[in-house]
Amino acid sequence: MANASNEHIVTSYEDELTELTRAISEMGGMVEVAITNATQALIRVDHELAKKTSKADKAVDDMQRYIDEKAVSMIARRQPMAGDLRHIVSAIHVANDLERVGDIAKNLARRVKHIDSQRVSKQLYNGIRHMSDLALAQIKRSLDSFTLRDANIALDVCRRDDEVDALYISLFREFLTYMMEDPRNITDCTHLLFCAKNLERAGDHATNIAEAAYYLKTGENLYYDIESGKVDLH
Amino acid sequence: MANASNEHIVTSYEDELTELTRAISEMGGMVEVAITNATQALIRVDHELAKKTSKADKAVDDMQRYIDEKAVSMIARRQPMAGDLRHIVSAIHVANDLERVGDIAKNLARRVKHIDSQRVSKQLYNGIRHMSDLALAQIKRSLDSFTLRDANIALDVCRRDDEVDALYISLFREFLTYMMEDPRNITDCTHLLFCAKNLERAGDHATNIAEAAYYLKTGENLYYDIESGKVDLH
Repeated sequence: MANASNEHIVTSYEDELTELTRAISEMGGMVEVAITNATQALIRVDHELAKKTSKADKAVDDMQRYIDEKAVSMIARRQPMAGDLRHIVSAIHVANDLERVGDIAKNLARRVKHIDSQRVSKQLYNGIRHMSDLALAQIKRSLDSFTLRDANIALDVCRRDDEVDALYISLFREFLTYMMEDPRNITDCTHLLFCAKNLERAGDHATNIAEAAYYLKTGENLYYDIESGKVDLH
Repeated sequence: MANASNEHIVTSYEDELTELTRAISEMGGMVEVAITNATQALIRVDHELAKKTSKADKAVDDMQRYIDEKAVSMIARRQPMAGDLRHIVSAIHVANDLERVGDIAKNLARRVKHIDSQRVSKQLYNGIRHMSDLALAQIKRSLDSFTLRDANIALDVCRRDDEVDALYISLFREFLTYMMEDPRNITDCTHLLFCAKNLERAGDHATNIAEAAYYLKTGENLYYDIESGKVDLH
């Protein structure tokens, strides 16, 4: 929190809003690195990197607390009008989603020690890598939609969540096939299946962030219906 | 939202705080019913109840939005002092955790259609039922700690999260054994394993709520270290 020590300097309201957006971007960068490292640790069976990734989650949690406190103090001190209030509240929600993505990275990293990489087919790891790339792309784009206040990017992120879900479903089937072929694969496959599910959930958080960005820009709620795959305006 | 139409009546600050706590209790009741029904639907393979449970989640989401808006508007209008500010912000966080528990119930309900109950051993269903009972008890107690502002109940909830985790780990092993014994069980067992994992996560949300209650009462952060199972004060 580079700016924590400057808090006593009187800053303009605009500067405070900018700092809030900057903090969200910084936190976004942190969780992108966390997901990237956790995936690398899984694929390379790198226990050191797994440990490092798991430990780094504390900084993400601290960042959420910083954003929370900053947002609440702004609401209390500045009594913002509707538009700005919307901006500040959305920062609380986005930080919450990013914190969950950080938790997902930590969970992925923790599974490294449970998986016997010798047994696992390279093809399954490729599936995980692909899943991670897609989820990361969604998170990046959702943060773009938030910081640029771009409703079109936000809509695009919501629509593309289908790709993440479709990949997860195809991976799910692939894992089941491996397990049925040779029951000795079951333990490793189950752990990797949880990893795939976690990455699918990271994609859901990207959708949440995009929805917040859409609301911020338009003042309208965008509901993405998971069942039908349709984006609805309410 | 019984009180929404009364918003134009001038209410005291104390009344607004009480209404916020009441709304949290109501939302807590809603997700408790949702988890209970979802578990029943799973165990009885009741597709109607599953559909009803899945649909009911919208009311939980609406309740979260109501609490969010109420809390933010209170912060903006009343400029509360530290103690009250803490109370209002914690309502936002607790509502967020309850919304996630609602999502978990919806996810459980959605799995009903994927599971062939004829194949699944009664013992595994018993495990799921036990997991659900434990998670529900934790959620109830965490809401008690929040509404009664009772730090001891909050600490107790955090300590008991170990039981939920231990049960999940023993179920995880049991499911793996069933899958290895007969690969035809793999599909059903995998779905039920995700249900168990979801219930374990519901327990984590109870811990989050208890941590918020503890902070509300004492002003101190209580970190529950999942790795060591120790409750730490920071």
